[in-house]
Amino acid sequence: MSKRQMIIGMHLGNGYGSQPGAWRMAGVDPRSYTSFDAKVRQAKAAERGKFQFLFLPDGPSQVVDVDEEAPNFNLDVMLTLAAVARETSRIGLVATGSTTFNEPYNLARQFKALDLMSHGRAGWNAVTSSGEDVAANYGQRLPSSAKRYGRAHETVQLVQALWGSWGQDAWVHDQTSGRFANREKIAPINLHGDFVASRGPLYIPPSEQGQPVIFHAGGSPNAHELAGRYASAVIGASFTIEDARAQRTAFRNAAERAGRDPDEIKYIPGLMTTIATDRRAALDRRIAMTERLFPQRVNYLQQMLGVRLDSTRLDRPLSREQLAAASPSPRDPRSAHALAIAREGWSLRDVLAHGVIDYHPVIVGPAIEAADHMQAWFEAGAADGFWISPDVYEDGIDAFVDGVVPILQERGLFHRDYEGTTLRDHLGAPAQYGLDPRVSR
Amino acid sequence: MSKRQMIIGMHLGNGYGSQPGAWRMAGVDPRSYTSFDAKVRQAKAAERGKFQFLFLPDGPSQVVDVDEEAPNFNLDVMLTLAAVARETSRIGLVATGSTTFNEPYNLARQFKALDLMSHGRAGWNAVTSSGEDVAANYGQRLPSSAKRYGRAHETVQLVQALWGSWGQDAWVHDQTSGRFANREKIAPINLHGDFVASRGPLYIPPSEQGQPVIFHAGGSPNAHELAGRYASAVIGASFTIEDARAQRTAFRNAAERAGRDPDEIKYIPGLMTTIATDRRAALDRRIAMTERLFPQRVNYLQQMLGVRLDSTRLDRPLSREQLAAASPSPRDPRSAHALAIAREGWSLRDVLAHGVIDYHPVIVGPAIEAADHMQAWFEAGAADGFWISPDVYEDGIDAFVDGVVPILQERGLFHRDYEGTTLRDHLGAPAQYGLDPRVSR
Repeated sequence: MSKRQMIIGMHLGNGYGSQPGAWRMAGVDPRSYTSFDAKVRQAKAAERGKFQFLFLPDGPSQVVDVDEEAPNFNLDVMLTLAAVARETSRIGLVATGSTTFNEPYNLARQFKALDLMSHGRAGWNAVTSSGEDVAANYGQRLPSSAKRYGRAHETVQLVQALWGSWGQDAWVHDQTSGRFANREKIAPINLHGDFVASRGPLYIPPSEQGQPVIFHAGGSPNAHELAGRYASAVIGASFTIEDARAQRTAFRNAAERAGRDPDEIKYIPGLMTTIATDRRAALDRRIAMTERLFPQRVNYLQQMLGVRLDSTRLDRPLSREQLAAASPSPRDPRSAHALAIAREGWSLRDVLAHGVIDYHPVIVGPAIEAADHMQAWFEAGAADGFWISPDVYEDGIDAFVDGVVPILQERGLFHRDYEGTTLRDHLGAPAQYGLDPRVSR
Repeated sequence: MSKRQMIIGMHLGNGYGSQPGAWRMAGVDPRSYTSFDAKVRQAKAAERGKFQFLFLPDGPSQVVDVDEEAPNFNLDVMLTLAAVARETSRIGLVATGSTTFNEPYNLARQFKALDLMSHGRAGWNAVTSSGEDVAANYGQRLPSSAKRYGRAHETVQLVQALWGSWGQDAWVHDQTSGRFANREKIAPINLHGDFVASRGPLYIPPSEQGQPVIFHAGGSPNAHELAGRYASAVIGASFTIEDARAQRTAFRNAAERAGRDPDEIKYIPGLMTTIATDRRAALDRRIAMTERLFPQRVNYLQQMLGVRLDSTRLDRPLSREQLAAASPSPRDPRSAHALAIAREGWSLRDVLAHGVIDYHPVIVGPAIEAADHMQAWFEAGAADGFWISPDVYEDGIDAFVDGVVPILQERGLFHRDYEGTTLRDHLGAPAQYGLDPRVSR
């Protein structure tokens, strides 16, 4: 019997990396934001590492300070994946597509076309948009959460129904007889919901995996419910094993409530990495990248630890008095880890360089630390895999591929090659075409 | 002084060709509908012929009889052009994007990303959608023409404003100073119309041509007005020199009314081609492709000529009595040409094989006939160029490139190589970034 192995995805964002200062680092082309060559090169590096998928987040708005930081996202996630689809052969291609500000017909068409183009490697991260800044780009106010999730359920259903509207064996294309397709197997869907509607059919035959795989992201009860019905994988965010295990269980339970096998839904929390030969080298790399932000992060760390800190004394460790007075904030799940790092005696600069105020758990150190983290979470039932955000794509992906991947393979935790050609193969997701007949509507 | 030369575009549709039977022809892969390899190969053939642009029409619906015919359009025009952008280097990339069923922010983002990806070769054919079948795919009824054109004007303006919202020199990306962009040159647009609205900005820097070129298609007064304000080129449809000249004049006058130089708008009518060594070989090629449709076309030809025809006698020419009684229908601009062909004594089958009931003028014959047609129209002031719909892409493009293009070049009517690298260069379109300040709103 083959041992259960983990799934690894790679974040592919703005062309530089997941750290704000990535665009300035040595060896990084500062024009990578608009370079599709750069993104294809990065995707190929991940494919060399046998990653199951690329994940391209998207939010049609930008809230960074562009004076000093690059925008967060790709110019356009679908066009980036089109380039990557043509220039890779195995890695899965997953992009966020908002259910709030897109028409189901347009989503269905573009994701299924990508699925054909990539020979069955497309995945749709179907999420609601949040943020008034996004809504404003569409001339709207943000709908309530209930309305956004109501529309999301309908949109996923319509999209899947449109995908199935061209029957799986409808395409005949027999030049001798002149039969192009079997019209009777290509049928309108005629679905009308409270928020969206479409007649169809969508004139796109099945891909090698039938239709794209559904992903979802988030951790709310609404997210559990939506993912439980439709998603094969969840882009997660958990700071502790306990939280990740609880999230994974919540998603699995939701899948079961929807009539599915809980193993059909993979919980994949994030992990940020700065891999170097040793901890000191890794910390220095992080400092070079993000030190500019440390003064404001000191302010935030004060709140996490409940003590006053001095941003002008970054090179000193916390004093005995500060450590004694410190108490992790219950409102920030990262606080206990931050305090534990501080207690190890690192300077304030190094504490911050450990990434204690980042969006996901952070490995700043040698490859084996990342492998140990992943093994511990995986074996504790906290994760079915991880999506990795390297600090800098240009060399950070290679550092992961050349350093962490071989250790995981050696331990039998990660495959040595792709088992199949489609994203469904890579995830072990069951065949599906059109709507899932088990899920009630 | 250099002689004025014509612009040539190539229709790129479903992977097979512009004739319904193209998918069955020898040498055609019957799976080309879903093959991006096929479309890239076809695009490269057009680039070899120095065509100024590819034109990918789109209508998110299909009305063909899929039992025997392939759907008309690409799976997804933007993903097709993304593949072509990566695998060609000069040819312009123009796709239809409906102003009726797309959000301006989504259109702006995807077309400008394509423009970056292709290094300044993108064009947007901004048209209103017509047809209840399209509207139904979006769960809607088709709005009135007035509303559709009202929304189209607003959408083009918003899209162009979003394109200009990232200032032309806002991107600094200076690694030494740490300056990524000049925030003061990246500003919201805050445009609110009666139909669409957007705040912006759009976080995409300029391409090598600044922003995509606007195309329009149609021949109504509404089309003249919209194109006159915004378009650099018009995808036209005219059956006679007289009509084409009138259309060209109408578009030029509309541009002048909008405060532009009329030479800034190019009128580009369509031309369908079946090129072979001689007329007989070309007719036989058309017969092999489309004879299946001739019985129903006989019915239509009857109406065009006002005489009874017998669809069971395709191999006979029209009788003296039929020719004497025939009179071209004033409701169909193709009728006079159809009668002229019939009077040449061709069999009924051959009359139809001349393409007398097609969507554009049709050349069925040797290359020189296409060159003569194009020269006559061009020199009569009826066209600034042509968009060519080859019968079958796989060999029909090569037949045009190897046969017609050298004649046109020899006559000084068509360039021997690209003068520049961008679509704006190819069209001689003036620089523009953001809204055109001359056009009143």
